[in-house]
Parts: sequence; structure tokens; C-alpha cells
Amino acid sequence: MDLMFLAPVGAIAAIVFALILAKRVMKESEGTDRMKELAGFIRTGANAFLARQYKGVALVFAIVVVVLVVLAFLGYVNVFIPVAFVTGGFFSALSGFFGMKIATNANARTASAARHSLNKGLNVAFSAGAVMGFVVVGLGMLDTTLWYYFLNWWFRDLDPATRAQAIATPMVTFGMGASFMALFARVGGGIFTKAADVGADLVGKVEAGIPEDDPRNPAVIADNVGDNVGDVAGMGSDLYESYAGARISAAALGVAAGYGMGGFSLPMALAAVGILASILGTFFVKTGEDASQKNLLKVLSRGTNISSVIVAVAAYFLVNLCLGEGHVGIYIAILAGLIAGVLIGKVTEYYTSDTYKPTQELSAESETGSATIIIGGLSLGMMSTAIPVIIVGIAVLIAYYVPGGGADGMYGIGMSAVGMLSTLGITLATDAYGPVADNAGGIAEMAGLEPQVRERTDALDALGNTTAATGKGFAIGSAALTALALIASFIDQVKIIDPNFAFDLSIINPSVLIGLFVGAMLPFVFGAMTMKSVGRAAQSIVIEVRRQFREITGIMTGEGKPDYTTCVDLCTKASQKEMLAPAIMTLVCPIIVGLILGVNGVAGMLAGATISGFALAIMMSNSGGAWDNAKKHIEGGAHGGKGSDCHKAAVVGDTVGDPFKDTSGPSINILIKLLSIVAIVFAAVFMNFSIF
Amino acid sequence: MDLMFLAPVGAIAAIVFALILAKRVMKESEGTDRMKELAGFIRTGANAFLARQYKGVALVFAIVVVVLVVLAFLGYVNVFIPVAFVTGGFFSALSGFFGMKIATNANARTASAARHSLNKGLNVAFSAGAVMGFVVVGLGMLDTTLWYYFLNWWFRDLDPATRAQAIATPMVTFGMGASFMALFARVGGGIFTKAADVGADLVGKVEAGIPEDDPRNPAVIADNVGDNVGDVAGMGSDLYESYAGARISAAALGVAAGYGMGGFSLPMALAAVGILASILGTFFVKTGEDASQKNLLKVLSRGTNISSVIVAVAAYFLVNLCLGEGHVGIYIAILAGLIAGVLIGKVTEYYTSDTYKPTQELSAESETGSATIIIGGLSLGMMSTAIPVIIVGIAVLIAYYVPGGGADGMYGIGMSAVGMLSTLGITLATDAYGPVADNAGGIAEMAGLEPQVRERTDALDALGNTTAATGKGFAIGSAALTALALIASFIDQVKIIDPNFAFDLSIINPSVLIGLFVGAMLPFVFGAMTMKSVGRAAQSIVIEVRRQFREITGIMTGEGKPDYTTCVDLCTKASQKEMLAPAIMTLVCPIIVGLILGVNGVAGMLAGATISGFALAIMMSNSGGAWDNAKKHIEGGAHGGKGSDCHKAAVVGDTVGDPFKDTSGPSINILIKLLSIVAIVFAAVFMNFSIF
Repeated sequence: MDLMFLAPVGAIAAIVFALILAKRVMKESEGTDRMKELAGFIRTGANAFLARQYKGVALVFAIVVVVLVVLAFLGYVNVFIPVAFVTGGFFSALSGFFGMKIATNANARTASAARHSLNKGLNVAFSAGAVMGFVVVGLGMLDTTLWYYFLNWWFRDLDPATRAQAIATPMVTFGMGASFMALFARVGGGIFTKAADVGADLVGKVEAGIPEDDPRNPAVIADNVGDNVGDVAGMGSDLYESYAGARISAAALGVAAGYGMGGFSLPMALAAVGILASILGTFFVKTGEDASQKNLLKVLSRGTNISSVIVAVAAYFLVNLCLGEGHVGIYIAILAGLIAGVLIGKVTEYYTSDTYKPTQELSAESETGSATIIIGGLSLGMMSTAIPVIIVGIAVLIAYYVPGGGADGMYGIGMSAVGMLSTLGITLATDAYGPVADNAGGIAEMAGLEPQVRERTDALDALGNTTAATGKGFAIGSAALTALALIASFIDQVKIIDPNFAFDLSIINPSVLIGLFVGAMLPFVFGAMTMKSVGRAAQSIVIEVRRQFREITGIMTGEGKPDYTTCVDLCTKASQKEMLAPAIMTLVCPIIVGLILGVNGVAGMLAGATISGFALAIMMSNSGGAWDNAKKHIEGGAHGGKGSDCHKAAVVGDTVGDPFKDTSGPSINILIKLLSIVAIVFAAVFMNFSIF
Repeated sequence: MDLMFLAPVGAIAAIVFALILAKRVMKESEGTDRMKELAGFIRTGANAFLARQYKGVALVFAIVVVVLVVLAFLGYVNVFIPVAFVTGGFFSALSGFFGMKIATNANARTASAARHSLNKGLNVAFSAGAVMGFVVVGLGMLDTTLWYYFLNWWFRDLDPATRAQAIATPMVTFGMGASFMALFARVGGGIFTKAADVGADLVGKVEAGIPEDDPRNPAVIADNVGDNVGDVAGMGSDLYESYAGARISAAALGVAAGYGMGGFSLPMALAAVGILASILGTFFVKTGEDASQKNLLKVLSRGTNISSVIVAVAAYFLVNLCLGEGHVGIYIAILAGLIAGVLIGKVTEYYTSDTYKPTQELSAESETGSATIIIGGLSLGMMSTAIPVIIVGIAVLIAYYVPGGGADGMYGIGMSAVGMLSTLGITLATDAYGPVADNAGGIAEMAGLEPQVRERTDALDALGNTTAATGKGFAIGSAALTALALIASFIDQVKIIDPNFAFDLSIINPSVLIGLFVGAMLPFVFGAMTMKSVGRAAQSIVIEVRRQFREITGIMTGEGKPDYTTCVDLCTKASQKEMLAPAIMTLVCPIIVGLILGVNGVAGMLAGATISGFALAIMMSNSGGAWDNAKKHIEGGAHGGKGSDCHKAAVVGDTVGDPFKDTSGPSINILIKLLSIVAIVFAAVFMNFSIF
């Protein structure tokens, strides 16, 4: 049965709910004049960043569209791709825009609400996060739905089975716009946020000896802008991409498996039910006064867990309705994905939270200096790759074999990715909540609010660190499963173009083997490029902050006013410039490899990038998260506390971890997905022109 | 034509030449009484390490032999394997033993010779390195030759073509003993050397403020012992393993490609000619007085280059003789390997030597502290993976396609690995020369020799750092090619056991895919384990050195004598204990994956481990090498020189780099080869008992 009608229902529900929440947040007071002023600075900075980013991205999009139009004319890509490329990018950018808008409006409001009670603070921050979450799933669903109904009308003369195929084939390629936008948002945002953070810390904390979030630091606003730019907009578009890629590729794999429109509509229907379940879940996120960190975490988990259970139950009926009786295997595949997502989050928490042994031991390694805490953090990150790989391995095994293998198995893998992402509305809400709370803490500090308020915002912020870490684990896990589904779609796409194509995907086919080697190397090079970018951008901030401290008289006594705008501007410019090279690399690599090694080589490259990227991204995120929390653990009084030698060593670890966990690690998610989607779009090109 | 008779010629030539060189080295004077005493300490320490290591390894070998005997009885492994396992281990251990013996006897002799002239110092140190190089290739060749002639006699009743197959099939599995020994030598030695180094530095240099190689530091002898244990014995057995694995698997692939004994003998004959060419090359390694660093490097390169050219010319005739006319493709494959080895060495030099931009820029990053130099070094290492991957990719492409693909192509890949390793005698000599020169410098310092002598030993030592870095690049490159040849042999082995085995090595087969995921993760976990081991072992040294400083009165004034033996003993014990877990993991993983995912899954795992291990090993080695040389660059006067803040930051980088470049990075070479060989040996087991 075709349940596509649920898709627009889900899309509209999400958007309406986001609007209601946004209205509610905006009704709150922004607090004192000083708070308003500070929030205004952050808002202006974030808007300046977005304006410049969109201008830059528009230029790049224009170039790519021209290329796509030419290719479409030559018949190498579908005629709708140039338009779909633009709509994907547009909706992805739009969700970033709304997410940022609400986040930069909610920070002062959260701080202000926290003056009343902890629950009110949590409520505002979480509502802002939820706006982001539901805008992402709502617009993501809307884009797919609009295209679906348009293509359904376009191919209205075809019989249903052929029509499903005719719709699915071009739609798989439609994710490229969103992917491309995600690259800019994630990489650009990641560079911005860490350049500002590192730059502010190196001069402010280390050289001038002023505390974090001190308004005398010229880079402090840039730092707060960065939280929004990187953690809200970047994370949002990363998961928008996964959400789009997973649903569309699963839909196409369903058609390839012979389920027609029923198979096509299942991932959409599941996602729609996931939206409704997520909306329900948000109502369970509330707390009493003076709740402990543990309690707060429980409250957030409650919301996510309730949504997951609803989806788990509903999925059973959806599978039966869409595919007919006797496809319990696909249902189990969905469950496998759903559970794998939760487990990967838990593992991330175990490795990066200071309530567990690994991070506690890591902070003890600060006793022998910064070198040992660096070695310890790196090996912690490397070690933490083991369990997520095993989890994904088991999930893939179940998702493929339980539905019976073959085309059904591939559909199972695609559906497990959709299962993992079905509750994205609420999981993303708990993620995006973090930077809002972080900003609220910064504003409370800068505005000199009462200590009790600081305590509450600190509690909210600390919780945000944990949810940010689990969110990263979730983002990586879903990126890996989505990438696998996209690789399967790539193979299908080649088959559709040429049903007699002679695949040789064996790992002992040298083209595949070399593809694997090249693919495995790409995340390393990508990681290196983005880290270098942060270094260069931070350097320019350091020089500027030093200049302001030297040239603006009275800046230290509070008489002179620091020039926040220049720092924001520098970060914006630097991040725009720096993200170009990684973007070009990601776009060009599959094409070069395809032209030399052909389809088999590209498939090898995609697999190589996915497997090594998965490990590297987990390592970088978890090393970074653990260093961050080891520092916080010491600041909490362990090993001599703040200002001790151990603390200094831990700060070095944290600084190394910053680009690890907030720039390079998460950017690898985009890399592995974008490589696949570029390969899908350009499949026809290198099927015709490859050397080997 | 069967040229096997060249193999014993090569083996005997290498061993005789090594004996002559050893005699010549031993004739040199050991210098003053103090020098003799110090050299004696180091020798005793190294012997104590070896004695304990052999005892521990013997126990593990005994257990594995029992398992193999049982499996042989049940018919799952060849009956000769238990014996071959022991001989492989024995010869590998023997070459480590001889190499260490000569190195620990040559250190004081090098220092003493350097009192006469730079050329004499170079001569003694290089001769000692050459003993190591030729013992490794000589004994490696001897083991293969003995087994070949035994099997040839055993199967004397078979007709030539069947006999070639009958000989090749069991011999492929014979590398496991050498691999296993290599694991212990590389990992154990790597842990020993860095635990001693880090421990000595952390307390001596940082806490007590005494210079490096100061005889008052109780860990100083352990540090010097470590150079021999890790860099001589570890490197030697690593390359012994590659040398054995590459030749045997190429021989088997030659038989599989239908070339019979001619194909079998080609890799052996090529290696034999390589030995003779290497012997010739050593005669060109000599220098005038007061040669610059650049000149010294040229002198060493001259030896290697001459050997390479001879092999390149001779290979043409060998291919014609062994395979008959018209196999120029195989010849080109050999050249591809030979050239790739040289190029990878050059790339390593570019990224890690302070005469080039990357390391110079890295040392500039110390200006903003230890965090930025760590970030810079990590991204340098990650970036440096790109070109070696492309080089290996091109080499594989040429080696496979030029001979015509298929079985011939696989043989081409095997032969390219042999080509790369053919001049191992002299390349290993230039590697092993490094630690001898390093030790000589240490002894010169501790014995308080004239400044002029120090200058000379410093020049020799600095050169040693460069050759060590290129040697590591070469070791990784050859390990990757050898691993590929072993994977091909694994597939062949399965085919021989069951000619109708239904392979599905496609990367979209979930078993292969999960194998790839697991394989890609293993080097990360292995790296984490070995880094953690170094940390723990170093910690025990720190505690012991602190205790001695506290409890031994007059240790600082030179009146009390530090207790060197306890430190050596601690390092030995710690390294023995710590290497067990990685060893078990490497042995057990292919078996577990095989039992769950079957042959296809194991093949995926091997490919995954090889591709991600290659990238990770290069990253770790090059990051470490660059940090080391960035520190040396600053010590040479850049960015404030020794004692400046920049220098302190660079020391942190160097300390992080120590386990990177000398323990974890190189150990990954062993991991990827050993996984393959374990898979080959146990192939029959998981062909019979796998779940999927």
C-alpha cells in the first residue's frame, strides 16, 4: 500500500509545531538591557556570517548548476537534477537559517528564564533546540514530498510499477544539493567556531589571563557566534543531509527490491510517524527545581526514549501496510537501526563523560604533563572505535540477512538507516539545545548575573556537553549507514543506466583495491586540511586580538570598548576561504577516480572512505570530547583543580581536541556521504569515459 | 627455467659477507675503559632483554605449536606447518640476535673510530648496520631454501608441474613463525625503547634538569638499550617478515599463474641477485673528512642507488630466463615495486626532514605553544598519507595490468613487492646504521670524549634520523605490498583446498563489508593498545627513577652510583607483559571473524586492515618523525633555540611522537601482515565452521 500521504502530514506537523515553539520562545523576556545588547551582538555576528556564507555558496552553486545543466543537455544526468540541486541546497540552507535565528534569539531568553527557575531555563533552551530539530525534519520532508508529487504528476501516464521506478531513479540524485550545502555549513561553521574559540583562548586566557567569556576579550562574541554557527547550523545541515539521503536511497532500494510504491513510501511513512512521535516526546521533557546533572540527563533521555518506543511499535504496522504481510525481516532491520543509534550514543557517552572510567583516567594522565594527556586522549579515541564498529557490523548483518539478503537485504540496510534517523526531530532537539545553553551561560557571565543563575546555566551547559557528544556519535553512526545505503543506490543507478554493466566489485580487482586505498586515505587528508584551516584562521584571530589589546586604550579596565565586529568578520572571511579546498576535493575526487578506475574503482573508493572515515571520525570526536571533559573534571576539583599544573596540561589537551571534535571529526560525516552522492550523480559520466 | 640454485648462493654469500664485516668491526678498539664499561652495561641490558624475550616467546610458540599439531592431526592445516612455524620463528629470532650482538658491540667502537676520522666512524657504524642487513636477508633466504629442497625431495615422485604446486601450497603458510616472532620483536622492542626514552626524559630532563644521555640518570642505559632493542631487532624482524612473506607469496602466485618452477624461482633468484648487488653497493659507502650532512646522505644513497640499478638491469634477464621470452610485463611490475620503494622513502624524507618546508613550518607552530604544534604535527602526518597511497596505487595498477591482469596480474603484484625488497640487504644496512650511531653519540657523551668527536658522532646521528625515517616509509610500503600479495595467496589457498568454493568478494556482500569495517578498525585499536602500553611502562620507569634520585645518596654529585639494571629490568618486564594483549588480538581476530563471517568476511577484514593500517601507520610515523626533527630544528637555533618556550613546546610534540613513530606506527606493519598469514594458515578451519 502506498502511504506517501503521510509524508506531507509529517512535514506540515513538524513545521507547524516548530512555529508554535518558536512563538513561545520569542514571547519570553530577553532580560536586562545588557543581556539584550550582548544577544544583539551575537545575533548580528551570526547574521553577518550567514549572509556572507550564502553569498559564497550561491556562487559555487551557480557554477555547479552550469556544469549540471551542460551534463543534462548532453544526456549524462537527469534533466531535473539542476533544479533539484538548487531546491535541496535551498531547503537545507533554510533550515540552517531558521535554526540559527531561533538559537540566537533564545540564548538571552534562556539566561533570563533561568533567573526564575531551572525548569524554565531548560524549557526555553530545549524549545529552541526543538525548533531546529523540527525545522530540519519538516523542511527535509517537504522537499522530498514536493518532488515526489511533481514527478508523480509528470509520469502520470506510466503504469504504477514503472512510475515508481521512474520517480525513484532521478530522486536518488536529488540529495546532492543538500549534501553540498551541508559541506559548507559543517566545514565552514566548524572552522569559524574553533578559530574563534582557539583564538580567544590563546590570547585571552593564556596571554592576558582573563577568564573565559570575559567581555573585555575582543574575540568573545565571535566565540559565542561560533557556537551557533558550528553546533547549530553545522550539525543541523549534517543531519538534514543524512535524513534526506537515508530516506531517498531507502525508497529507491525499495523500488529496486520490487516493492513498487509501497516500498517507496515505507521510509517516508516511517519518518512521518517518527515526526509525530518526536512531537509527543517533547512534552515529557520537564524537570523540577534544583535537579542534578543526572536527573537532567534522565529527563532528556525520557523524551527520546518515549519517541523511540512509539516508532518501534508503529513501524511494525507500517511495514505490514506498505509491503503486505510477511515482511517482518524489514521490521527487524528498522529496529536494528533504531537500537544501533541509541547504543552508539551510549558508547560515546561512556568514552567521553567524566562519570565513567576512561575520561577519569585521562584526567589523571595530566599528572605527568601535557604530552601524556595527549597520548592518552589519542589512544582513548582510537580504542573507542571498536564497539561502534561492532555495533554497526551487527546492525548491518541483521538488516541484510534477516529480510533474506539480496535486494531485500539492501533495502533492509537502507531501512535501518531510516530507522536510526526516524526520531531525528527530538534527538536533534537535544543536540541543538546544547549551544543555546552554552550561549546562555556566556551571556550570564558577561552580563554579570546573580551566582544562582550562573549555577543553573552551568548545569544546563554541562548537560549540553554530554548531549553534544552523544549527538556526534549519532551523527557519525547515521552517516555511515546512510553512506552504505547510498553506495547500494550507486550500484543500482549504474544498473539502471546499463542493465548489462559488467560489475567486478571484488576486493581483489585492482581497480576496487586501489579505490579502497584512495578512499581510506581521503578522510585523513580531509581531516588534515580542516585542522590546518582552523590553525590558520585562529592565527589571524590571535594577531587581531593582540592588536586590539595593544592599540585600544583602556580595554582592560573596561573604559575602552573592544571591537567585536572585526573578529567576527575575520572568522567569517577565513572560514569562507578555507572551506573551498575541502569542498573542491570532495567534488573532484570521485570524478577523477571514476575517470581513471571506472565504476568499480569508485565503488571501492566509496567503501574505503566510509570504513576509514567512520573510524577516524569516531576517534577524533571521542578524543576531543574526552579531553574537554577531562579538563572540566579537573576544574571540578580533581588533580589540583583550576590553575594547577594538571589543569594547564588538560587545557593543552582541550585545545588540541577542539578542531578534532568540532571541525575535522564531524566534517568527515559529510565527506563520506557527499562522495557517494557525487558518484551517483556523475555515474553516467565515468561509465562512458573511464580509462580502466 | 628453474633458477632456484641462485637462492642458496645468495643466502651463503650474505651470511659469509656478514661474518667478514662482523669480524672487521670486532677488530676495532672499543676505546677508553669508561667507554668499555658503558658499552658493557648496554650489552648486558640488551642480552637480558633478549634472554627474557626468548623465554616468553618460547612459551607462546609452544602453545601455538600444540594448537597447530592438533589442527594438523585433524587435517585442517598442513603437517609441516608446526615445524615450519618453529624454523621461521627461530631464524627470525636468530637474525635479531646477531643484529643486536653486533650493534651493541659496535657502538663504542664507532665512537672510538670517530676519534680518528669521520670516515672511520661512518665505516664502523655502517658495517655494523650491514651485518644486520645481510644476516636478515641471508637467514631469510636460508630458511626458504632449506624448506624448498626438503619439500622438493619429499615430493620427488611427482611430475615437475604438480610438484611446484605441492611445494608452493604449504610454503605460503610457513611465514607465520617469522611473522609471530616479528610481532614480539617489533611490539615488545617498541614498548621497551619508548618506555625507557619517555621515562628517562620525563624525570631526567624535565624534573631533574640534567641533559640527555647524562650518566647520572638511572634510566640512561635502558634508553640506549632501547635503541638497539627497538630500532635494530624490531626493524630487522619486521623486514625479515616482509622479505619472507613477499618472496614466498610471489612464488606461490607464480605457480598459480601456471609458470611452474620457473615462476616459483623468479622471486628467489631476484632476491639472490639483490643480495649480490647489495654487497657490491656497500663498497661505495665511504666519505672524506668533514663531510656535511648532505654529503653523508649522498654517500649512503649512492650505495643503495647502485644496488638498485644493478637489480633493475639483472631483473630483465632473470625474467626472461625464468619465464621465457615475452614476459616483459612482469619485469615492469618488478621495476614498479623497486621505484615505488625509493619514492615512498623520498616522500617520507620530504615530510620529516627539517631541510624541507613541512617540518620547518611545524617548528614555527611552536611559537603559539604546545597545542598548536600538536595539531600541526597531526595534520602533517594525516596529509602525508596522500602521496604514498597514490604511489602504491600506481604501482599496483602497473604491476597488475601491464602483465595482463588475472593470475598474471596477481603474480605481478607479488613480484613488485619482491622488487621493492630485493635490495633489502643494503637498505636495511642504512637503517640499522642509525641506532649504532645514536648509541655511539650517547657513549661519547657519557664518557666525556673530546668535543670534536661529539661533533662527528652528532653528524652521524643526525644522518641516522633521516635514514630511520625513510626506512620506516620503506617498511610500511613493503608491508602494504606484501600484505596484498598475502591476501591474493589467501584466496588461492582457499581455491586449492576447495576448487569449487563459492567466493563472493564483492564489497556489497555484507560479510565483506563488515569485514572491511572491522579490518579498518583494527589498526586503530592496535595503535591504542600499544600507545597505552608505552604509557603504563613509562610510568613504572618514572616511579623507579624518582625513587633512585630520592634514595641513592650522592647520585647527583656523581658519588652515588645509579642502579641501571633495575630500570633495564623494569622495561624488559613491562614490554613482555604489554605485548601479550596485542599479540593475542592479532592471532584471534582473523579466527573469530572467519568463524562468524567466513572466507569472504576474512578477505574483507584483511583488505580493510591493510588500507586503513597503511594510512594510519604513515600518519603516525611521519607525525612522529616531523615532531622529532622540528625539535632538533629549534635546538639548532631556530625560534629561540634550546631552552626557549618554543623548545619546550617542541619537546611536548616530540614526546607524543615517540610512541607514534617508534611503537604504534611500525607495529601496524606487523599487524597487517600477520593477520593475512594467520588467515592463510587457518583458512581450512573457517571454511568448515563459519556461521555465515
